[in-house]
Amino acid sequence: MSFKIALLPGDGIGTEVIYSAKDVLQAISKKYNKKFEFEAYDIGGVAIDKHHTPLPDATIEGCKAADAVLLGAVGGPKWDNNPSDLRPERGLLGIRKALDLYANLRPVKGFQKLLHASPLKEEIINGSDLLIVRELTGGLYFGRPSERRDNGNAVVDTLSYTRQEIERIVDMAFQSAQLRKKRLTSVDKANVLESSKLWREIVEEKKSEYPDVTVDHLLVDAAAMKLITNPVQFDVIVTENMFGDILSDEASVLTGSLGMLPSASLAENGVGLYEPAHGSAPDIAGKGIANPTAMILSAAMMLRYSFQLNEEAQAIENAVEAVVNEGYHTQDLKSTTGELVSTTEMTQLIVDKI
Amino acid sequence: MSFKIALLPGDGIGTEVIYSAKDVLQAISKKYNKKFEFEAYDIGGVAIDKHHTPLPDATIEGCKAADAVLLGAVGGPKWDNNPSDLRPERGLLGIRKALDLYANLRPVKGFQKLLHASPLKEEIINGSDLLIVRELTGGLYFGRPSERRDNGNAVVDTLSYTRQEIERIVDMAFQSAQLRKKRLTSVDKANVLESSKLWREIVEEKKSEYPDVTVDHLLVDAAAMKLITNPVQFDVIVTENMFGDILSDEASVLTGSLGMLPSASLAENGVGLYEPAHGSAPDIAGKGIANPTAMILSAAMMLRYSFQLNEEAQAIENAVEAVVNEGYHTQDLKSTTGELVSTTEMTQLIVDKI
Ligand SMILES: CC(C)[C@H](C(=O)O)[C@@H](O)C(=O)O
Ligand SMILES: CC(C)[C@H](C(=O)O)[C@@H](O)C(=O)O
Repeated sequence: MSFKIALLPGDGIGTEVIYSAKDVLQAISKKYNKKFEFEAYDIGGVAIDKHHTPLPDATIEGCKAADAVLLGAVGGPKWDNNPSDLRPERGLLGIRKALDLYANLRPVKGFQKLLHASPLKEEIINGSDLLIVRELTGGLYFGRPSERRDNGNAVVDTLSYTRQEIERIVDMAFQSAQLRKKRLTSVDKANVLESSKLWREIVEEKKSEYPDVTVDHLLVDAAAMKLITNPVQFDVIVTENMFGDILSDEASVLTGSLGMLPSASLAENGVGLYEPAHGSAPDIAGKGIANPTAMILSAAMMLRYSFQLNEEAQAIENAVEAVVNEGYHTQDLKSTTGELVSTTEMTQLIVDKI
Repeated sequence: MSFKIALLPGDGIGTEVIYSAKDVLQAISKKYNKKFEFEAYDIGGVAIDKHHTPLPDATIEGCKAADAVLLGAVGGPKWDNNPSDLRPERGLLGIRKALDLYANLRPVKGFQKLLHASPLKEEIINGSDLLIVRELTGGLYFGRPSERRDNGNAVVDTLSYTRQEIERIVDMAFQSAQLRKKRLTSVDKANVLESSKLWREIVEEKKSEYPDVTVDHLLVDAAAMKLITNPVQFDVIVTENMFGDILSDEASVLTGSLGMLPSASLAENGVGLYEPAHGSAPDIAGKGIANPTAMILSAAMMLRYSFQLNEEAQAIENAVEAVVNEGYHTQDLKSTTGELVSTTEMTQLIVDKI
């Protein structure tokens, strides 16, 4: 049996870290006797340059034919002033929709060794370990109409959801909570939005199906506060697309190790897409100094969620933790102690541990 | 000349702190020989109980007839399960719309003496001093349709803006920046939302009218990160209603003194409404231990913005700072040093300084 993996390097440091993930997967392949086949496709800025679209059909088809997708990152100043349909992030939004990747899972967990890099005081951040489950294919991102009106003197966007779209993400969140500390916080703005009221109703309805999970509701503004004042209180947070975009980025900087945070975007019965929580970082691209850890940990999530290779996923996570604990780190973690290494050195250290 | 002030105590600690503001204003009245007339009206839960509506007509009329409005806070568990139109926050949303309070100004500045209460490390938060200018009467909060569809199996909310609504808040933000450090950060989600694209265009158009102000654009997810990793970089932030709700609450906890943060909500040529950034805090209501400072500083904002009484506003701010520097604080600021005081004691200390 062989797993087909579509590689979407994208732009900036995406083109560097993706090959770190590939190296690590090849080490896993050898050690555990698993077969991985890799095929690379263009997305984002590089696709705009080569194919005049951020998401070529060949990329969509390649991803659909694969068992899972690894994505580096998209975007860069070169394409910042392009018209909307020729912007790198359109490729990202497009592939999410094309593969129906409705569930974005973003774990945020600090490495004990790296907590000194957190902007939060150690007593606030210590012990935090949360998972944000963000709805990824609905809401304001894809609702129509989204247009100018009245000769350009007015504008509307539409936040729309179907009951079924909310149900599947809420189910995913409950199930994720069952595998963790069994606490679910649903975040909405039910005191203002009709969509949030339906969201809250559905969470309430679903409760009885997951009696082992404790549920509470939090308004999005209160959630933005509590993530900072008391991040430890959270286990799983579930929320709609735009709130999830904001809260997951907010949460990603709490531990001080954005360069270590993976993500998974999952479809109902199909392929999953795995990418680092960080972006393409044009300022450090091409220098060989990017932190490959988030990408490597995203590959571990792929092994776990798409291939059910739990032992192999754990092996990667253990290797990363061991290397971090030995004090090795890339330049993003301005440590005063420990050894500063490059992207390829960090990758090799992790490979060696496996 | 006499200034007419409508007092809207509302619920919870709102009914305590509003009289602290009144006491302080009476001290200002004596010292500076200014005449203030106070008239109280019901809003929120208390109005639901007494008049079966969170916003009685008499309240709207009283506010319209006044020169400015002081609001305590609304809400509490008693009304949490009411139907939408009988919820306290409907009163708040209603009065904003009725008075066309389109600009919400939320300054966030730490008191040096209290920075130890911040969840952020001192080197991150020290020196931060920012102002969030939030659009308050448009966007998802008031856009129509906002309804269930398809027999309750789907739902939409609408994010709508007119050019004129965006222009006036952007002007307000530029003008606020001119009175401060002359740096404006406009926050949007222009890589996804059509409304954000128009927002960004308008900010770009307006730039030339305010050549002394430096402008940059930030995506809302990046803004949520940078508020934590580098709050000092911001001067004035301007953003639409929902993003402003989230970011202003996020920003409000950075300094560790939420109980000290005032806010102003301003109309184009009319009345302004001033309220603390914190809520009604039902858990501590009725105990006489609430921190009155945010409410008192909101009254100072009223003197400055609605009555142009700058010297008097400054006198209140100086009095607060002096009392804080002497170590007096309410229970929300769990200090190990300094003297713990009640709401009325804190108020009296501030009155005495004036
Ligand atoms: C690039 C952008 C469209 C995207 C989003 O808003 O979803 C990004 O911020 C993310 O979170 O993956
Ligand atoms: C109570 C609620 C409707 C309100 C809002 O969302 O505007 C509050 O959170 C605020 O920020 O004043």
